[in-house]
Amino acid sequence: MSDLGSTVLKDAEYPLFAGVDVGGTNIKLGIVDNQGRTLLQHKVPTEQERGPTDAMQRTADQLESMVAQLEIRREDIAAVGLATPGTMDLKTGMLLHPHNLPAWWEFPIRDCLQNACGYPVWFGNDASVAAYGEFWVGRGIDHHSIVFFTLGTGVGGGIIIGTLSIDGEHSAGSELGHTIIDFTESGRLCGCGKRGCLEAYSSGKAVVQRTLEALESGVHSRLRERLDQAGELTPLMVAEEADRGDELARKIVFDTARYLGIGAVNVMHTIDPGAVIFGGAMDFGGANSQLGMEFLNRIREEIRQRAFPVLAERTHVDFASLGGDAGFIGAAGMARVGLQQANGSP
Amino acid sequence: MSDLGSTVLKDAEYPLFAGVDVGGTNIKLGIVDNQGRTLLQHKVPTEQERGPTDAMQRTADQLESMVAQLEIRREDIAAVGLATPGTMDLKTGMLLHPHNLPAWWEFPIRDCLQNACGYPVWFGNDASVAAYGEFWVGRGIDHHSIVFFTLGTGVGGGIIIGTLSIDGEHSAGSELGHTIIDFTESGRLCGCGKRGCLEAYSSGKAVVQRTLEALESGVHSRLRERLDQAGELTPLMVAEEADRGDELARKIVFDTARYLGIGAVNVMHTIDPGAVIFGGAMDFGGANSQLGMEFLNRIREEIRQRAFPVLAERTHVDFASLGGDAGFIGAAGMARVGLQQANGSP
Repeated sequence: MSDLGSTVLKDAEYPLFAGVDVGGTNIKLGIVDNQGRTLLQHKVPTEQERGPTDAMQRTADQLESMVAQLEIRREDIAAVGLATPGTMDLKTGMLLHPHNLPAWWEFPIRDCLQNACGYPVWFGNDASVAAYGEFWVGRGIDHHSIVFFTLGTGVGGGIIIGTLSIDGEHSAGSELGHTIIDFTESGRLCGCGKRGCLEAYSSGKAVVQRTLEALESGVHSRLRERLDQAGELTPLMVAEEADRGDELARKIVFDTARYLGIGAVNVMHTIDPGAVIFGGAMDFGGANSQLGMEFLNRIREEIRQRAFPVLAERTHVDFASLGGDAGFIGAAGMARVGLQQANGSP
Repeated sequence: MSDLGSTVLKDAEYPLFAGVDVGGTNIKLGIVDNQGRTLLQHKVPTEQERGPTDAMQRTADQLESMVAQLEIRREDIAAVGLATPGTMDLKTGMLLHPHNLPAWWEFPIRDCLQNACGYPVWFGNDASVAAYGEFWVGRGIDHHSIVFFTLGTGVGGGIIIGTLSIDGEHSAGSELGHTIIDFTESGRLCGCGKRGCLEAYSSGKAVVQRTLEALESGVHSRLRERLDQAGELTPLMVAEEADRGDELARKIVFDTARYLGIGAVNVMHTIDPGAVIFGGAMDFGGANSQLGMEFLNRIREEIRQRAFPVLAERTHVDFASLGGDAGFIGAAGMARVGLQQANGSP
């Protein structure tokens, strides 16, 4: 990795930026150049139970050793971008109540990392930051504005318009999983406690839940045997059986696509972005698998049926291209934009 | 009006801007100062059947006579903002297919007005421009970002974040009436041909339609007599009977509020604005009537039930304050922002 880093480094455009993407299991770090090319990346275990100060110190230490490994000067890095899951208060740099980091609640994470590493730190929501990564050097590179859906246990969102990340006045912008697609009493119950949210239909959790409901209603499927064998169902099992042609599994996958298409139309009629991009672990194999492409095409079909004709025709709908690197690249990119704005550039 | 103009003009801040708001019946014009204060306003009949060139020439002539009336110099006005209903292509300054201006389809309206009046002309969607008016000097003045719902025959929208109007890549941003709130087969049919749009529930047309359906199903109401007398129902009749305590009429009004609250939550979870503002003729009397305030409070209640707690608590939800002047004021304000950006100001 050091060799790879050195190869890219030869024509790296300065200044450099570091991105830090905090997840429940790992913290990903990367050093990228002024054009968003990754020079070096590493990860450190989050070990959230040891608390945020410990994790931020280990992150800063790792960053220092990456600077040494790249044989660059400390000051070649102009700023650091930090991304975490919400809830958060971006203005004050506070973590509020992130679900998967219970030991980090109500903690001034931005200032903590800033103190630990000595660089100016810019703080963002992980989904928004991943959206910025895709916008900067990923699938959104040719567009002036994008909407990014992150598909996982839940459904997250990021909206980028020009250099602006739509974070909102209360750090709750781009919460696309909690737009309502069925307001009626029969709307599905969401993890947030409300009914009819997009996430209640199209998250990994919803995929499993809808499958269990179908099995309970007596639908025949290989997934019943999988459930009996494993004692539980996972979205991966649904994807595997859909790959093998199981009818229920395929219906579950394509219904998921349909719901995401509806969510996409709502944000298209609100933002009208150049591209709508889907990423995350729940992409049913993504662009490299037949099932993934069928899933994407079903999303596109739903959009064609429901969006204004001009948008249905012209909005680019695609999978993300940066995979798990979008977070640290986007965090570094946001730090770059923040620095430019602080220096008075447009 | 000339006297009023002169009074305000004494401490007017230069440069001045003109705003032009094209409606199906009238074209409203105003000259405002650099702080958004109206110095003088007039209207000319649209007479759309005489075509757009004729209307833009009459608009330019009216503007010239207003300059004379104010005894200002022609060059005191720095730019003109032009607002029309869509559909449109903002980048090329083209009107595409506005419903209520059939004789103006596929016409280069921006350049036409520019040629007629000799000022640089900025072109915007009427709902977005009204949103900017409320943002600049109306109900949104204390907020960094607002969402504006225009309630009328249809439901329009405008989103302003900082100085940015969310117009979208294909001039179809902020089409909040066409966000989907019920994706199921039982979603109400919208004028756009799709099902489940917010507009299909909460527009003036939907208010009448829902009332007729209730009457057909046998609900007792004074509105049945109104219908028999007049041969048709209007939203105004529903408002009048709701004012008098008619049970069905009140249910129709408060259901409308409920639907709008759901639409508001969707855009709150997408944009997270500082304020959500409702304006337009279909406000059931607005802030100056008891029914209007009950209507607004029912919107607020729905938002409280469905939005993230922090947003439910902190987002300002209110009626607009500029009435029918929001369009020309906002158009002038957009011209001002456009000029500042062209001159390199942030």
